[in-house]
Amino acid sequence: MDKTEKTVKEENVFSGRLLKVYKDEIILPDGNKSTREYVRHNGGACVVCVVDGKMLFVKQYRYPYHEVTLEIPAGKRDGDEEPVKTAFRELEEEGGLKAKEMELLHVIYPSPGYTNEKIYVYLAKGVEKTKMHLDEDEFLNAEWISIEKVKTMLKNGEILDAKTIVGVQAYLLNQ
Amino acid sequence: MDKTEKTVKEENVFSGRLLKVYKDEIILPDGNKSTREYVRHNGGACVVCVVDGKMLFVKQYRYPYHEVTLEIPAGKRDGDEEPVKTAFRELEEEGGLKAKEMELLHVIYPSPGYTNEKIYVYLAKGVEKTKMHLDEDEFLNAEWISIEKVKTMLKNGEILDAKTIVGVQAYLLNQ
Repeated sequence: MDKTEKTVKEENVFSGRLLKVYKDEIILPDGNKSTREYVRHNGGACVVCVVDGKMLFVKQYRYPYHEVTLEIPAGKRDGDEEPVKTAFRELEEEGGLKAKEMELLHVIYPSPGYTNEKIYVYLAKGVEKTKMHLDEDEFLNAEWISIEKVKTMLKNGEILDAKTIVGVQAYLLNQ
Repeated sequence: MDKTEKTVKEENVFSGRLLKVYKDEIILPDGNKSTREYVRHNGGACVVCVVDGKMLFVKQYRYPYHEVTLEIPAGKRDGDEEPVKTAFRELEEEGGLKAKEMELLHVIYPSPGYTNEKIYVYLAKGVEKTKMHLDEDEFLNAEWISIEKVKTMLKNGEILDAKTIVGVQAYLLNQ
C-alpha cells in the first residue's frame, strides 16, 4: 500500500535562532486532507570515544528538561558540513582529542513524528590528545567513565539521551 | 559548577494540533541573557515485543523525512496517562496483542536540545493475541521479523528510528 503523504502547501509558522517549525497541508493516501507540524533541523553528529577502558562523556544542561544530562560529545552540523567532519570537530572541541578515523555505527532519526533531524553516531578510532578547546556559551564538562560503570549507569537509567544510549549500546554489542 | 539556566520569561510562539513551541528568555550560569527554543511534548511509550523468535514492527510514513520507517509499536500518551498504559494500549492497537507485563528497559530523551519529550521503552512479557485494532488515519502495517534478520538490518542501517534502535539493542544486549 502506498503510504505517501503529498505536500499541498508548506507554511513556515516559526523561524527562530535554532528552530524552524513548519505546518504543511497534506493529502493522505486515502485522499483526505490533513496537516503535518514538524521541525526542520540541520542534523548533527556524535562520537563514542573510548581510551584505556574509559568512555568520554560531557555534562550538558538541557533547558527543555531543566536537567543536567550525561551525553557523548556531539554537535550540530555547520551548514552543509559532512557529518563525519562534525564528529571530528566536536571530539576536538569537547574532548580535546584527535581521531585518525571515524566509523559510522548508526544514523538515527530521534523523533520522526515531528523533526527531520538526522544524527550520525560514530566510533572514534586511533585517538590522540590535543589541547582542550571549549566553545563559549556551552559550559561543558568532559568526564571519562569506565566501561563497567557505564554499563551499570545504563542499566540504572542514569543515561537518558537517545544518541548516547544508541552509541553506548552499539559499543557494548561489538565487544 | 552550577549549570542551571534560569527562566526569565516563557513565550509560546506556536501552538498547533501536535506541537507547542516555546521561545523562553533565560539567564545563563555566567549571568548573560539568552533564549531557548524548544518543543513541549506530552511524551509516549514504545514496546519491544518478541514472539517465537520474531520481533513486531510497524511501517510508518514519516512526513518530516518523506520516508517509510520501520519502528516498534509506539504512541503518544493520552493526556496524563501512565506511560505503561500507553504501551499496553499501543501493543493492542498496532499489533492486536495483549501482554501480561511490561518491563521498562529505558527512558529516552530523543533530542534534548529542543524537545522535552520522554519516551518510555518497554519489553512486553506474556504476550497473547487479541483481535487486531487499527487507529484510523494511521495506515500501519504490522511486520514480524526474525531476530537474525533484525540484527542484519540493524547492522546495515535499515533501522533508523532512535527508540526502535534503543529497544532492539537493549533486547540484544540481554540475550
